[in-house]
Amino acid sequence: MSQQKESPAAAVNTPAATTVTPSKYSGRVVLKTILESGGGLGLVGRRVVIGGWVKSSKEVKKETVVAAPPPVDGVASQTGTRGVTCTEILQSRIPVIRSIIKLLGGSNYSVREKLEPAAPRPPPPPIVFLQVSDGSCASSLLVVVDSSVAPPSQLLHTGTCIVAEGELTKSSVEGKHVIELKVEKILHVGRVEYDKYPLSKKRLPLNQLRECPHFRPRTTTVASVMRIRSALTFAAHTFSQNQGFLCVQVPIITATDSEGFSEKFRVTTGFNNVGKEEPKFIDDTEGVSLEVVKSAIKEKSKIVEDLKRTDSNSEALIAATKDLQKTTELASHLEAREKSKPKNWPKADNKASEEFFSSQIHLTVSGRLHLESFACSLGNVYAFGPRFRANKLESVKQVAETWMFEMEMAFSQLEDAMNCSEDFFKFLCKWLLEKCSEDMKFVLKRMDKNSIERLQSVILNSASRISYTEALDALKKVADKKVERKLEWGAALTTEHLSFLADEIYKGPVIIYNYPKQVKPFYVRQNDDGRTVAAFDLVVPKIGTLISGSQNEERFNVLSTRIKEMGFAGEQYEWYLDLRRHGTVKHSGFSFGFDLMVLFATGLADVRDVIPFPRTYGKVSN
Amino acid sequence: MSQQKESPAAAVNTPAATTVTPSKYSGRVVLKTILESGGGLGLVGRRVVIGGWVKSSKEVKKETVVAAPPPVDGVASQTGTRGVTCTEILQSRIPVIRSIIKLLGGSNYSVREKLEPAAPRPPPPPIVFLQVSDGSCASSLLVVVDSSVAPPSQLLHTGTCIVAEGELTKSSVEGKHVIELKVEKILHVGRVEYDKYPLSKKRLPLNQLRECPHFRPRTTTVASVMRIRSALTFAAHTFSQNQGFLCVQVPIITATDSEGFSEKFRVTTGFNNVGKEEPKFIDDTEGVSLEVVKSAIKEKSKIVEDLKRTDSNSEALIAATKDLQKTTELASHLEAREKSKPKNWPKADNKASEEFFSSQIHLTVSGRLHLESFACSLGNVYAFGPRFRANKLESVKQVAETWMFEMEMAFSQLEDAMNCSEDFFKFLCKWLLEKCSEDMKFVLKRMDKNSIERLQSVILNSASRISYTEALDALKKVADKKVERKLEWGAALTTEHLSFLADEIYKGPVIIYNYPKQVKPFYVRQNDDGRTVAAFDLVVPKIGTLISGSQNEERFNVLSTRIKEMGFAGEQYEWYLDLRRHGTVKHSGFSFGFDLMVLFATGLADVRDVIPFPRTYGKVSN
Repeated sequence: MSQQKESPAAAVNTPAATTVTPSKYSGRVVLKTILESGGGLGLVGRRVVIGGWVKSSKEVKKETVVAAPPPVDGVASQTGTRGVTCTEILQSRIPVIRSIIKLLGGSNYSVREKLEPAAPRPPPPPIVFLQVSDGSCASSLLVVVDSSVAPPSQLLHTGTCIVAEGELTKSSVEGKHVIELKVEKILHVGRVEYDKYPLSKKRLPLNQLRECPHFRPRTTTVASVMRIRSALTFAAHTFSQNQGFLCVQVPIITATDSEGFSEKFRVTTGFNNVGKEEPKFIDDTEGVSLEVVKSAIKEKSKIVEDLKRTDSNSEALIAATKDLQKTTELASHLEAREKSKPKNWPKADNKASEEFFSSQIHLTVSGRLHLESFACSLGNVYAFGPRFRANKLESVKQVAETWMFEMEMAFSQLEDAMNCSEDFFKFLCKWLLEKCSEDMKFVLKRMDKNSIERLQSVILNSASRISYTEALDALKKVADKKVERKLEWGAALTTEHLSFLADEIYKGPVIIYNYPKQVKPFYVRQNDDGRTVAAFDLVVPKIGTLISGSQNEERFNVLSTRIKEMGFAGEQYEWYLDLRRHGTVKHSGFSFGFDLMVLFATGLADVRDVIPFPRTYGKVSN
Repeated sequence: MSQQKESPAAAVNTPAATTVTPSKYSGRVVLKTILESGGGLGLVGRRVVIGGWVKSSKEVKKETVVAAPPPVDGVASQTGTRGVTCTEILQSRIPVIRSIIKLLGGSNYSVREKLEPAAPRPPPPPIVFLQVSDGSCASSLLVVVDSSVAPPSQLLHTGTCIVAEGELTKSSVEGKHVIELKVEKILHVGRVEYDKYPLSKKRLPLNQLRECPHFRPRTTTVASVMRIRSALTFAAHTFSQNQGFLCVQVPIITATDSEGFSEKFRVTTGFNNVGKEEPKFIDDTEGVSLEVVKSAIKEKSKIVEDLKRTDSNSEALIAATKDLQKTTELASHLEAREKSKPKNWPKADNKASEEFFSSQIHLTVSGRLHLESFACSLGNVYAFGPRFRANKLESVKQVAETWMFEMEMAFSQLEDAMNCSEDFFKFLCKWLLEKCSEDMKFVLKRMDKNSIERLQSVILNSASRISYTEALDALKKVADKKVERKLEWGAALTTEHLSFLADEIYKGPVIIYNYPKQVKPFYVRQNDDGRTVAAFDLVVPKIGTLISGSQNEERFNVLSTRIKEMGFAGEQYEWYLDLRRHGTVKHSGFSFGFDLMVLFATGLADVRDVIPFPRTYGKVSN
């Protein structure tokens, strides 16, 4: 437990660890505990079992042995502990080793050359160098397997899974690897069908990786992104809980339209009306569990017995008895059907012709309205969950299913929500630098050279705060033609405008507040000027709007009038109006685009590359 | 930040705090920081602003003043600091105070009686005693308001929201309250429409509270449940992250049926085929955002310019130009439509006649299959999210939308998953006792007198581990007739059987493993005996199955044959089979019924009482 909990940053700065503990729920040692423990040098001589997938490999074959290799600078002192030592093999294969070093990304290296003339002896067996990753960190472990241990052909292909036992030794190849695993036993091999494996080619571009979301976390880039995503999840919860916010699981299935202008996904069980391939309605007890019915019989029998014993009115007893009888009949029917079925018959889908829910329902667009009701009783609350928009227009920043982080605070106003959202954003940036330093270094090297600087800048500086009107003025003053300048007060700011403000004018995060009433949702509190509302956006470089927040309307009459103005069906919002009818309070909150935050941290361009299984217009194949 | 983070247990054991810090994002002081800081006595004399909702109230009216009250034992030394002191008022109202004390739940009390004969003087103004809660803890603050500060009629009704400023003083009523707030200024009142407010009656039963999910967290019971729920959420993340598991947001919308026998919710945008009330298809650009289109124009212009500059082939340039032209036309169309709309026209729902997704999709039943793909690249992973079953049969343990916690571990087997699930369960129980002690005390007092003992027993004892066959034998041996005894090997254990095992036979959590193949999902690993599979259930008293787990089939041929046997469409599972085709590995995991865990902790009977907005067969009104 302890070694995994330690943050990478801490591990790197501490002296080299000298012990490794196997993962608590498998015999293997997680590679992170080896590779991030002071580079692993302190672990030389330890015996471990590791598991992972081959990222790249090199076989040193017999026919490549060179009798008198050219001299190479440098020294190496490592000697293996059993059989043919690695150094003995290496000394005769310097040209091959150069190519291995290149393959493994080594920048400087040294191999000792024996100065005695090579004596005639049997050719050494081939040896396999594997880079193995288990997804726990950005680095991989150099694993050396002699062909006497396992046939090289089984291990060489990218994507092969191995579980191996051996000894950690100082690396014989002095490149980026400090230590290596000298394998003594291969405990498991999960081979690949090389010609079918999508990742067999080197460095596929991200758009091609999207075709295989089930495999792409095996790439170093996507794995790093997913670890950053996981760290951000925990950071978000930690901030909220530390600040005394309570987590609320707001509903996904809802009858409330939380914005009034988003395209929504309907949820249905009335398959006959929708699909063409669905089998016809056969039996409305399909899918009813016999187990549950039996349990119901037991409960109902008890009710009947209680009624008999307590001498209650006869009507109740008759009704209860009838009810029991009906349930018993259902059980008999189910049992008969069960017996008549062939074994292993797949239980059918729901074929009921009726809808499960009697009202029209859809997948939630935002959790803020439901969260408000909890704020108006529990004070400070937050939600973290999937939100849905059926927006067909392709965009690199939008998907149909996205995770949002939402906070709502009773007894608070617009400025409180702006402060909280900014603190939240800064906390997340800081967390990444402190707890994900290895992955952030990888991002810096491979994805975005400004990534760390961008996070540091967020932490050190406060976001500029300007009103919508000031934003408009700033944009109008822009002398170049990069942005549309015909801006009339009242128009929505386009993503282009927002990016220009953050990227070019303010060169950092900007909070824009007090928007015109017509460009923000109905629930936002109206300001005294009669034309603006207490909404804000936190706009960040590269991304645009990362956070949208507002003080919500707490005045019953104002909100009620606004709902009528918008032409919304009254009944849908009665529960929401209730919160203003009884014990209303000033409150504010915000929605934070979690997927966009991962984009901001990694510097990637397309949100589909930072979501495990992104959902966009078109086909869903998994 | 700090004072809210402190665990209740820690706060109670520390010496009384002598300072209070207002909440960071509002001027108020959160009541938990007052009431759980050593009981609050150290805070006497502090000036604070608090906010909350009235839970109960009592007005001491002029006409109840008694000139010569009967003597009462005891002494009190509290003297107010301004105006008419509380003690001065109290001394003349002992009979009334007796009734207040009763109302406030005080068990012992003492009020000083002035021994001098009452001198004639003007009758003191009425005074209001309020119990105010802000949802941050189970206790409420006694708030005392003189009628000269605010009209009593505004404050008295249950559910009224107040923000008040005043001084903390030693309580003049020595009941359960140690301190009280002597109000000097009322900053906000959110009144209630008393006759319409659902919580105006005292202690509604839980089933009636279900009618108003948006208000019920204002009751002490539901608030406590929701705080426990929040603590469990954070505990679950903390355990996983401490153990090196990565959080993965698995998809909600999916084409993969993860069990093959659950009833599912379909997701659709093809409204015309489903609803009757939906408006007809008018314009397929409805819902397309002008903002996004404009941004697309910018990008496409850039492509055209790049192509012109780089002298690329003319075909590409023509295509790009045409594409830009089409998008520009779309923008004009949208702008025209925007202008022709009346102001504040609600943007319409998605009326597209086409489906958003080309394949048949539904809401996920379980995240485990998707999680497996991440385990087979990142090692140890977990997911926490909503899962859906369209099960129409009513049950106190099942809802249509439930939150599940799922874990998956590469390089692990059945026993590892059993160990991990048990550790996880124990960790959560321990967390509640340590971090939620005040709420757990409330649960003990009001909901379930065995709650704390039940948690302690889980922590101290290991779950019994028995195979399915052993479970069957144990049930057959039962001499009484409480359970169905005609049990044939191969039949599923009913909820009744499971409860009997945990509640009666083993009297504690039981892990049952190695189930017959036919009662578990297709993906569970087949054991060598050919008839059982490596699945397990953790069954706990009062609840039944809390955790279901398994080692999943890693052998391509075995899994592929099983999928065919089940009659499932092959294509749907190709990506899942891929994980066995390329670099397969032994792995195991489990699903944890989060909502049921809240039920277990609180001892409540119906899962709908522990879910913020429960979804069951029938109407969804919010």
